[in-house]
Formats: sequence, structure tokens, C-alpha cells
Amino acid sequence: MAKPVATRGFARERVLDAALDLFAAHGVSGTSLQMIADRLGVTKAAVYYQFHSKDEIALAVVKPVYDDIEHLLRITETLPTAEARRSVSMSGMVELIIRHRRVSSVFYGDPTVHHLLETNDEYRRIGDRLADVLLGPAPDNSTRVAISMLSAGVHGCVNDPMIADLDDAELQKILLDFTKRFLEVCVPAQ
Amino acid sequence: MAKPVATRGFARERVLDAALDLFAAHGVSGTSLQMIADRLGVTKAAVYYQFHSKDEIALAVVKPVYDDIEHLLRITETLPTAEARRSVSMSGMVELIIRHRRVSSVFYGDPTVHHLLETNDEYRRIGDRLADVLLGPAPDNSTRVAISMLSAGVHGCVNDPMIADLDDAELQKILLDFTKRFLEVCVPAQ
Repeated sequence: MAKPVATRGFARERVLDAALDLFAAHGVSGTSLQMIADRLGVTKAAVYYQFHSKDEIALAVVKPVYDDIEHLLRITETLPTAEARRSVSMSGMVELIIRHRRVSSVFYGDPTVHHLLETNDEYRRIGDRLADVLLGPAPDNSTRVAISMLSAGVHGCVNDPMIADLDDAELQKILLDFTKRFLEVCVPAQ
Repeated sequence: MAKPVATRGFARERVLDAALDLFAAHGVSGTSLQMIADRLGVTKAAVYYQFHSKDEIALAVVKPVYDDIEHLLRITETLPTAEARRSVSMSGMVELIIRHRRVSSVFYGDPTVHHLLETNDEYRRIGDRLADVLLGPAPDNSTRVAISMLSAGVHGCVNDPMIADLDDAELQKILLDFTKRFLEVCVPAQ
């Protein structure tokens, strides 16, 4: 009985890998189930056996990222001050985005993916919890802009082709340093 | 003889406006010439009369942004120090991105648009000149990360739906302040 399950798991991973390559090259909107099947050298029916829609594939591709964000939140939400919650969450997000460098390049900034994530209850709740720890209670406009700018800056930089020659360790070191300094000078403690 | 030209100019603007709306909602990949025609209530042939491909429309949509970047560069490239060139260019870019808020939300971060802009000689040259003034001569990795992070941060924040309630003037004031502080603490003068 073990073999079909193993094969199925393997096929699932292969579909997700192929999908991620295609999403990165063409965006989610520009990728079809047929393209995924063609890349794997299988029929569209074989892909349907694993996933019932492209949306389901896109959600499965980002699942490990959301699992890690949830894990980070379970740690940071217990911290005693808003500043500690914010700075530990932001540092954790820097590490997490670099760890998921390939996936984050696809799911960040794509309007189709954004809509998909927003309409998924589980992911939206995690996104809301992340916003809560990063923004803190009753954030003013300046704090909101700072967190938005910093989040976009980290995501965008990690996915910038001009920075692709930097290895993950060096990029992480520099980004963690900049993130800390930015919070210090732009988001005063409450 | 004046009327056909005026009509043509009017139709051109209408196509660009409709295209921008659709690009914003579906991405460039997810938008077809047929969708643009449908939105305008005209035939695809009527759109073809103005533009020969979707790429041509996308390039025309971003043209005013590149015209403004070129104008900014003509000013900043004459400044005497690398620090002045960098900080004036970055402040100018903040203003420019806010001025072109709608267009920048479409052309930033979309892999299709990125490819299109990279393969257009005129736009690529302007992009290279902008990178030169922002990075300065022989930038180290830290400076490269800082400029990438700051550029992505400003673009991403301006297009962040969570920030959409801030008016342009307030957003610009806060972003100019953060940009200045970030450069001060993260990009030491050479």
C-alpha cells in the first residue's frame, strides 16, 4: 500500500516545482494548467488528479511560507511589549523571506495572487495577525507608512535581480542590520 | 484636417486609460487586446488602428513616467557630489512615483512588464542612468542592498492598498522624511 501514496506525494511536489518555475517566468495569470502539464510531460488530467484548479496549486505553493509565518507569530505574540513584538517579527520575516526567496518572488506584488490570498480565510487571518504585531496598537499614519515601506523594501530587495549575486547569508546580515536601523529612526517607541 | 488628428489623439488616450484600468485589475499578462476593446465598446480592429500590440500599449502607458525620470536625471546628473546626486534623485523619485501612483502600481513588480522594459533600448538606458546616480561609483554590497530596499520600499508602499487612504501630500511628506533618514543611517557618505 505504500507505493501509491509515495508516488502521489512525489507527483504533488513535482507539480508544485513546475508551477513555481512557470509562475516565476509568466506570473500566475500567465500560467495555465496545460503549461504545467506540458512542462512535466504529462496530460492535463494527470495534473487534475493532484489539484483541481490553478488557484489550488498557487495556494499549495505558498503554504510552507504561511506555515512559517504562523510559527513565527506563535513566538512573537507572547512578547511583552509592542516594540519587542514588532522588531522580533520584522527580523523573523527577513529570515523567512530569504528562506523562501523563490516563492516570495512569485506571491509578492502579483495582483492575482494577492486576491487569492485575501480571499482565503486561513491565509488572511495569518496576514491580519502579522499586520497586528508589526503595526502595534493604534498605529499613526507615520508608523503605517514605515511598516509598509519596510515590508515592501525587504520583499522587493530579496527578489531584485540586481541583488541576485549576493548569497543568502550576506543578504540576511545586511537586511537585518538595515531593518533594525530603520525601525530605530523611523518608528519611535510608543 | 484638424478633426481626424484630434479624434485620433482622443482615442489613443481612451485606449491607454482603459488598458491601465485592466492592467491594474488583471496584470499585463492577464489583459488582452479584446478585453481593452470590450471595455471601450469598440472592435479589436479599432484598437489595432491605434496600437499594433499589447506591448506597444504597455510601453505607451509607462512613457510619461520615463519622460519624467529622464527630466529628473538631466537635473541630478549635473550635481557635484555622489551624495547629492543620490539624495536628490531619490527624493525626486519619491515625488515622481506618487505623481504616477496608478501607473507605477502596474509596471512595478510585474515580470511581463519588467521584461518588456528591459528589452526596450530607450527605457533600459534611462533605467541604467537612474541606477548610476542612485548607486554612485563602485557601490559596495551594503549600498546596493540599501538602494534596492529603498526603491522597492517606496514603490511598494505607494501601491500598498493598506495605505490607500493616505492622500498624496501626506504620503509624500512621510516618505521623503523616511528616505532621507534611511540614506543617512544606512548609506554612509563615501
